[in-house]
Amino acid sequence: MNTFAIAIHGGAGTILRLEMTPEKEKAYLAGLTDSLRAGHDVLRKGGLALDAVQAAVVSMEENPLFNAGKGAVFTHEGTHEQDACIMDGATKNVGAIAAVRRIKNPILLARLVLEKSEHVLFCGEGAETFAQAHGMTLVDDPKYFWTEHRWNQLQKALAKEKREAKAHARLDHSDDQDKIGTVGAVAVDQHGNLAAATSTGGMTNKRQGRIGDTPIIGAGTYADNNTCAVSATGVGEFIMRNVLAYDIAALMEYKGMNLIDAANLAVMEKLKTLGGSGGVVAIDRDGLIAMPFNSEGMYRGFMLADGTMETAIFRE
Amino acid sequence: MNTFAIAIHGGAGTILRLEMTPEKEKAYLAGLTDSLRAGHDVLRKGGLALDAVQAAVVSMEENPLFNAGKGAVFTHEGTHEQDACIMDGATKNVGAIAAVRRIKNPILLARLVLEKSEHVLFCGEGAETFAQAHGMTLVDDPKYFWTEHRWNQLQKALAKEKREAKAHARLDHSDDQDKIGTVGAVAVDQHGNLAAATSTGGMTNKRQGRIGDTPIIGAGTYADNNTCAVSATGVGEFIMRNVLAYDIAALMEYKGMNLIDAANLAVMEKLKTLGGSGGVVAIDRDGLIAMPFNSEGMYRGFMLADGTMETAIFRE
Repeated sequence: MNTFAIAIHGGAGTILRLEMTPEKEKAYLAGLTDSLRAGHDVLRKGGLALDAVQAAVVSMEENPLFNAGKGAVFTHEGTHEQDACIMDGATKNVGAIAAVRRIKNPILLARLVLEKSEHVLFCGEGAETFAQAHGMTLVDDPKYFWTEHRWNQLQKALAKEKREAKAHARLDHSDDQDKIGTVGAVAVDQHGNLAAATSTGGMTNKRQGRIGDTPIIGAGTYADNNTCAVSATGVGEFIMRNVLAYDIAALMEYKGMNLIDAANLAVMEKLKTLGGSGGVVAIDRDGLIAMPFNSEGMYRGFMLADGTMETAIFRE
Repeated sequence: MNTFAIAIHGGAGTILRLEMTPEKEKAYLAGLTDSLRAGHDVLRKGGLALDAVQAAVVSMEENPLFNAGKGAVFTHEGTHEQDACIMDGATKNVGAIAAVRRIKNPILLARLVLEKSEHVLFCGEGAETFAQAHGMTLVDDPKYFWTEHRWNQLQKALAKEKREAKAHARLDHSDDQDKIGTVGAVAVDQHGNLAAATSTGGMTNKRQGRIGDTPIIGAGTYADNNTCAVSATGVGEFIMRNVLAYDIAALMEYKGMNLIDAANLAVMEKLKTLGGSGGVVAIDRDGLIAMPFNSEGMYRGFMLADGTMETAIFRE
């Protein structure tokens, strides 16, 4: 039997220790643990990495603590628009969706696109039409996605924007890290296959129709059995401009770097230089795991074949 | 003075010599010539590569022969949904839009996103709301985009789909090449800056909300002064899965390949192996130009600082 392993993230950004109560920390770590177990169960039974990353992401989408599915952040207009992507490293097949409003588990629609469509990326109503045509039930009441925590974040962001507009000040993005979050998973299965999945509500107060890095193949999500599987989180605009996820694969394939060095270079140097805050979880065929982030914290964890599990939020 | 140069494409695919009358060929070559001159004029006067690629693409968007702007292909639903992207190699700033229906020159909206938004990629109505908020007039009558040639292509595709559905046959994509097309430009200016721009109506009979490679940074469009500028055309699903445009840059940066070898490897081997039909135009800081395509033809051309110009459709 080959080894297997899974690594996940629940978003990166400014996670202040001061604002983190012991109760909150416990809840986040429990959410990460649930997600890891869901993915690990699939792998342990000999299932596919593709199914494992999906299970891990579904678990976080259904947990209101994370910015994906239930608990997603609000757009400027007070709606929810979610992005998701899932990629199979064995075939390089991929499914992705952007700016969907009524999909309970965006990652399941991304998987449906992977399985059933000749296209790989759908946005907006077209994505929802595709979902319905394939028997997926849409969320009727947008209140499903409503959470007080995220609503308050939007009000705070709107108030700040108004103050700055009044003062004719240039918009200050120094606290962008406060508004972001994503969930994602990467895994290697017993058959040597890699897969990656990412899902997000985007950033608080984003404009209608904005697409971030999550559903972009090579930016927020990438998997290729020959190199690695990567799921990114952070300010999407910078991650896209750096083609972050594929960059890690390219550093491995073309420069001969190992996973750890490639992920560190891409996140701690290249992304940071451009001004982008964020992190990744990445895995290779040997089950080697990298989880670099240049932000203050990143909800993250991994679980190995022997059951070893670690979860963390802050830098150790 | 440094050298300057521009290269463009008007789409790749099955362009049958048999169906190409001398009149049609002349019209296409004239369209390519107009586009090259528009971009070259900007460069000759010391303008930016970013403005040059924009001017070249606008010229093709306004020419009904090409699948972008006026002359864009129809979706399955009989509408038009266009994608575009423009990237500045000097700053790695980028603007992109997807699935817009009422934008006369999609590349100008992409440029507006680059200049005015903190986001880099907008889709659908959100993109059009952004356009209006910045004073851009939308096309009121969708008939602006209507052309007989494209309408007939859709009817042909729909009839074929119906026949195959009746016969319970698996959809045959062997003539996908017939349904695609894109326009794009890459340039280097006298200041040593690179830029790339791509615009498309997508593929005939595509489903509502489908996004192809064109607006995806690193897939259909990429520019970085340190390596190259690339604009791709072909079946977007394969180009996205290969992260084609950035792959050429990565081969140069990490493997030390020159532009020609990198573009050839990416298009003639890697893209082809995955099953993808298409091509690119690419340029580096020395004004070296690569225009490989693995399809039967690609509308293409280049123009150098000394005024040398070449345009072509088929393989020589």
